[in-house]
Amino acid sequence: MNRNICVCLEFLTEEHRAQIEETARKCGFAVRFFTPEQEAEARAVLPECEVLYAHSVELARSATATLNWYCCSWAGVEPYCRDERIFANSDCLLTNSAGAYGVTIAEHLLMVTLMLLRRMPEFGQVIQNRAWSGQLPMRSILGSEITVLGAGNIGSTFAERARALGAAHIVGVSRSGRARAAVYDELFPISRLDEVLPRTHILVMALPGTRDTQNLLSRERIALLPSDAIVVNVGRGNVLDQDALMDALNGGALAGAALDVMVPEPLPEDHPLWDTKNLILTPHIAGNMSLGYTCDINVRMFCEDLERYAAGQPLKHQVDRKLGY
Amino acid sequence: MNRNICVCLEFLTEEHRAQIEETARKCGFAVRFFTPEQEAEARAVLPECEVLYAHSVELARSATATLNWYCCSWAGVEPYCRDERIFANSDCLLTNSAGAYGVTIAEHLLMVTLMLLRRMPEFGQVIQNRAWSGQLPMRSILGSEITVLGAGNIGSTFAERARALGAAHIVGVSRSGRARAAVYDELFPISRLDEVLPRTHILVMALPGTRDTQNLLSRERIALLPSDAIVVNVGRGNVLDQDALMDALNGGALAGAALDVMVPEPLPEDHPLWDTKNLILTPHIAGNMSLGYTCDINVRMFCEDLERYAAGQPLKHQVDRKLGY
Repeated sequence: MNRNICVCLEFLTEEHRAQIEETARKCGFAVRFFTPEQEAEARAVLPECEVLYAHSVELARSATATLNWYCCSWAGVEPYCRDERIFANSDCLLTNSAGAYGVTIAEHLLMVTLMLLRRMPEFGQVIQNRAWSGQLPMRSILGSEITVLGAGNIGSTFAERARALGAAHIVGVSRSGRARAAVYDELFPISRLDEVLPRTHILVMALPGTRDTQNLLSRERIALLPSDAIVVNVGRGNVLDQDALMDALNGGALAGAALDVMVPEPLPEDHPLWDTKNLILTPHIAGNMSLGYTCDINVRMFCEDLERYAAGQPLKHQVDRKLGY
Repeated sequence: MNRNICVCLEFLTEEHRAQIEETARKCGFAVRFFTPEQEAEARAVLPECEVLYAHSVELARSATATLNWYCCSWAGVEPYCRDERIFANSDCLLTNSAGAYGVTIAEHLLMVTLMLLRRMPEFGQVIQNRAWSGQLPMRSILGSEITVLGAGNIGSTFAERARALGAAHIVGVSRSGRARAAVYDELFPISRLDEVLPRTHILVMALPGTRDTQNLLSRERIALLPSDAIVVNVGRGNVLDQDALMDALNGGALAGAALDVMVPEPLPEDHPLWDTKNLILTPHIAGNMSLGYTCDINVRMFCEDLERYAAGQPLKHQVDRKLGY
């Protein structure tokens, strides 16, 4: 029996295809490539495939019991974890590509953190009014105290950059209280988050969307932050209490925030987030796939795991579907 | 005869005053402190002072021949160099405080560079229209090719940060073709700028305003940049041909620019810069004095040079009034 891989992605270059084909050939697989516009054609060949590399819930759902491994090219995989019966084969392996997004999302985090510390929401207003005023106090990454909530690849890639820019103290907070990177001055489990928040001036949130993280930064916890704190979220919108965040920003209980993720997306035209004070909104672009190296790493991660899969070894980027990441 | 220092600054904390007083006492000086609002009172005591630490052209001009050293708390000192007869004492020493601004201006440079690479002028427009679109190609500091025009303290502090974020190749361009920092992959004298521009993707300009730098980035030189290049200027507005820059941006011959300095400042309400495409304007705030460490370094630099002055040694931050920096 032929062993087949179905790839349904929009971002592959010719070099990426050649790299996947070469790895597949070595491992005894044949590959069929499709773009998301050709999803119907991809669906037609799925019953003959045991591996799928894509980012489509519909495609995953239409796979037959032959599918043994689904590699999602995105970082967040909550739709595949929320629905236990999404795969016809209940033992189907799931991997994600979170590791590919560390650099681009870290650069986004750095950009919006600097924009908030340097008062760009207000200066942007000054410029929009064609006015001229330079008297707003600014702050700096140098000497700053940062808490990274979600100390995985994305959070830690940011922490490394903040460290290089002279951050004075970086606290990592993760489910386990452990982190892969050695960049943190202190590590806490999420259960002790309330101790960390009152001394947090820059809160960077890079958590997956899971049952455990929903509303994690609740109204009560937002109130624990000092009034000069800023909050930056690139994980999932429902990880924080959006109404409480808007109240805190509009009431001056927080100095600023930047959201790349929110509820709902896209944001309706009449949503109060658009008018919230000192808030930088971006339309879920932090992990934009247009950076060449994001795509390169994505493909490399798939190929690495394909070799492991073919050798019967555990996959490196496997998701625990109960935990959700 | 008493040796006196006149200090006329707005940003000093009590600790800064104590530090200046202690250094002065050790060196046999007495200090009189004034704020810029008290400039008339400061002027009244100037005839008894041999040192002035301030940032006022008027105050410098009103000093008598007793003034032997003027320490300007700002980085740019062109008004004191342009006018040869500004000081009653033609041998009056001039120092500047450029070294105090490296970190804050480097963070500004990093912020606007990321904003341009990550298409924030366009995404800001998307958000302002309450729209939702994430399909603009982005670029990254990681792997980027940067030219720093003006490889002094400010340019080099930025270059160090860009290096830490993974910039692939950093070229320094300075008058002499030398630089204090070892962060550059290549160094060129300004006379060879035309060779460097065609392979520059991020051009960071941190030059002083002097006779030699005026219109240095001319229309012809702007045309040498590739069309995907971005230009960032924090030095002086007249260092580039502003009309040519606007034409290049509006015509798509340049990908973007960020100006913290421009001609004239403040910018009149009807100036075409306000409406220029892919341009980030800020109202001369990159070297904002509100950061505590900018003030700390400023005072420390003055105190260091005060000790040298008292010991009859050359001053560390002395400006060559002919060169203008």
